[in-house]
Amino acid sequence: MAVTLIRNGIVITVNDAFDVIEDGFVAVAGGRITAVGAHLPPELERAAAVQVDAGGGIIMPGLVNAHTHLPMVLFRGLADDLPLDRWLNEFIFPAEQKFLSPSCVRAATRLACAEMLLSGTTTCCDGYFFEDQVAEVLRDCGLRAVAAQGVIDFPAPGVPDAAQNVGHAVEFVEKWRARCATVRPSIFCHSAYTCSARTLTAAKQAARRLGVLFQIHVAETAAEVAQIRQQQGGLSPVAYLDRLELLDADTLLVHGVWMAAADMQTVARRRAAVVHCPHSNMKLASGIAPLPAMLEAGLKVGLGTDGCASNNTLDLFSEMDTTAKVHKVKSLDPTAMDAAGVLKLATIGGARCLGLGDETGSLEVGKAADLVVVDTRRPHMVPLYDAVSQVVYAAKASDVRYVMVAGEFRVRDGRLTDMDLDCVLQDVVPFARSVAGELGGAAAVCAPQQAGKAVFRSGR
Amino acid sequence: MAVTLIRNGIVITVNDAFDVIEDGFVAVAGGRITAVGAHLPPELERAAAVQVDAGGGIIMPGLVNAHTHLPMVLFRGLADDLPLDRWLNEFIFPAEQKFLSPSCVRAATRLACAEMLLSGTTTCCDGYFFEDQVAEVLRDCGLRAVAAQGVIDFPAPGVPDAAQNVGHAVEFVEKWRARCATVRPSIFCHSAYTCSARTLTAAKQAARRLGVLFQIHVAETAAEVAQIRQQQGGLSPVAYLDRLELLDADTLLVHGVWMAAADMQTVARRRAAVVHCPHSNMKLASGIAPLPAMLEAGLKVGLGTDGCASNNTLDLFSEMDTTAKVHKVKSLDPTAMDAAGVLKLATIGGARCLGLGDETGSLEVGKAADLVVVDTRRPHMVPLYDAVSQVVYAAKASDVRYVMVAGEFRVRDGRLTDMDLDCVLQDVVPFARSVAGELGGAAAVCAPQQAGKAVFRSGR
Repeated sequence: MAVTLIRNGIVITVNDAFDVIEDGFVAVAGGRITAVGAHLPPELERAAAVQVDAGGGIIMPGLVNAHTHLPMVLFRGLADDLPLDRWLNEFIFPAEQKFLSPSCVRAATRLACAEMLLSGTTTCCDGYFFEDQVAEVLRDCGLRAVAAQGVIDFPAPGVPDAAQNVGHAVEFVEKWRARCATVRPSIFCHSAYTCSARTLTAAKQAARRLGVLFQIHVAETAAEVAQIRQQQGGLSPVAYLDRLELLDADTLLVHGVWMAAADMQTVARRRAAVVHCPHSNMKLASGIAPLPAMLEAGLKVGLGTDGCASNNTLDLFSEMDTTAKVHKVKSLDPTAMDAAGVLKLATIGGARCLGLGDETGSLEVGKAADLVVVDTRRPHMVPLYDAVSQVVYAAKASDVRYVMVAGEFRVRDGRLTDMDLDCVLQDVVPFARSVAGELGGAAAVCAPQQAGKAVFRSGR
Repeated sequence: MAVTLIRNGIVITVNDAFDVIEDGFVAVAGGRITAVGAHLPPELERAAAVQVDAGGGIIMPGLVNAHTHLPMVLFRGLADDLPLDRWLNEFIFPAEQKFLSPSCVRAATRLACAEMLLSGTTTCCDGYFFEDQVAEVLRDCGLRAVAAQGVIDFPAPGVPDAAQNVGHAVEFVEKWRARCATVRPSIFCHSAYTCSARTLTAAKQAARRLGVLFQIHVAETAAEVAQIRQQQGGLSPVAYLDRLELLDADTLLVHGVWMAAADMQTVARRRAAVVHCPHSNMKLASGIAPLPAMLEAGLKVGLGTDGCASNNTLDLFSEMDTTAKVHKVKSLDPTAMDAAGVLKLATIGGARCLGLGDETGSLEVGKAADLVVVDTRRPHMVPLYDAVSQVVYAAKASDVRYVMVAGEFRVRDGRLTDMDLDCVLQDVVPFARSVAGELGGAAAVCAPQQAGKAVFRSGR
């Protein structure tokens, strides 16, 4: 088997001991990590078919985006700074109803994949509609993913008859269950306030029967908690889901902003997982989730960007920086979250939430070769006293130089290896123009121009 | 006079009407903006000596970093996630005492200038020690700046005799007062808890006599407010400074995290300005300043990154994004701060705080040509419905493609025009190695390697 060697870097393993290797290497063969260490054996060097000199950069696990709605990149910046009800009812819901189609979802997901790969994300967990198209694009772009068909008790894009929502999701899961090693299907119920008890129960039972992850937005806003308490005899959203027997080790609860201590105990007891999405929760003014308490309670926690209508990017580097800082300031305690803890959330933590903890999320022998090389030859990356601090507090998505998923380079020297970026950008423009034209208020959509047009010219 | 034309971009003027020109141009001659508009007159096109095609990108005012301590880039990532007293007393203060020297400050400031220019900052307001060296480097690197010599009632780097602190600052101001059109001197008293009433009064009187800006950290932490209240008969830090007659239109108050409503009224009445530094306040767990209330009270407000020991970068794009989001979530109101309001803080707002509101901070005829071109051909910048939203919520520092200060390009096609980046990075390493060696605990400092070493090679 051909060996690829990535050498001459600081290796942040994110293994259990959290080893950081100052001048380390990672060897890859057959899509898996075959060696990680400090002293490169000469025979390994001789055996390598391809060698990549990391140039003193940081070699780290690929990032895991544990919650997103990829096709929503189409709505990036469409309607910011609005009250939540106007944002949803005047822009996002109408846009989803009117403009989503298989071809639109494909183009938008390709754009999202380009953004994720270029910013060091190797695994994502998506939940949306037309998920068959999303899954296809994820597979073709080479990302590792959990892709979930959305379930909601209203007519939805691709599911005009809500009575078919769970059936549609089951079909999707059955189609993708054994189709692709890197893209696993899942079922995503939107929430306890948009799905009936019957829908929730049917969806979870199907997920359990099919052996896939069940996902749901929970306790995102105070209004949601109040509504569920009123409707469900005082139960919190988590307690309500628990009463419906939806919580187990294959359930992923998204947001949890307004989880109380009792909720966390319930989630811990059921071994369910939580995804923390600080940028989205801040931008929509939902609140700041009790992350330190969740970790204290022993919950599995990952980080997510959420969709680009509420973030507005898929940048996990920025998400890590914000995660550390927002919990420090919320608690007025600078030790509340540290860099290593945050990096774990964005790698192994997310992987465990998705049931992929044995497959990805750390650089260890036997795991899939999902890794990133971060360039350190940038002014904001100098000096470099502590690689973990640097990754969380200084590194930018744009510092990502190499990205490998399952042993294949998807980004090489800062460029996508398999995707034509200009085409990817252009393909979204007609769909975005339709959205802008219909919803009014928004300005004309500017088409990205071909690269290389910005040049110095002498006028005479 | 040779005309430079930047064309084919979306021009965000940040003028009073906040005009955004969809397909616009900016013309520059003699270091000043001579025209801004949508329809390029043919005679102007013919007259242009240099034309830059912005390639459909965003042409916007250069960003104004209204508070920083540039040489502290040397301490970036040295000691993160520690309680404030350990961070200050075990790391930052000892490091400043032992390692700062004129040559060290020069190397560190050059690094900071490279970082600022590459991330679209054209104006900064610095306050530190060895400020003569800081000012020289700022001038040589071509940034617009207010540079302030620090004053503190302890032996300080370059000012071993604290009794000379104000005298030293006065000398610095006198040296730089008429020396350079783009670098203006100033006096920076560290705080009301590290400077006596006598020092504060003498420093402000000197600043007033010399006609320069007076700066001071105020109400950064709850502990500071408690201490001043106890020492000053119940007065808040702002009230105390007001009693000392330090507040006027040439006073810049930094942080103001714990300003009460009465403090804001005092600041408004004296027409003093405030710099908001959200990343630093979050990372040090100081608190979240009442920015919406400050703006409501009519205060002049700018944005600052603070020094890199508490941020850890000089990236105002990230600062803008966080500013909008943290105030939305603090108030649980998504309309609390909008993108346009935040962009104003980072441009014209900061310029006005520094007394440079007529010179920079917006793209208007007659003003200095301080501008930035942001590339929009990136996945995270597509689609583009609203250029202002895109700048605040999606753009990254790395999207900056051209930077002009006073009519001179300092960044062209993403690269520094006048600085050798490899040298700038390498020059800091020996100083950082000394810091790491002495303070222990911190890992060995990795030297950035020359670019171009990360290449694909076939092993055989």
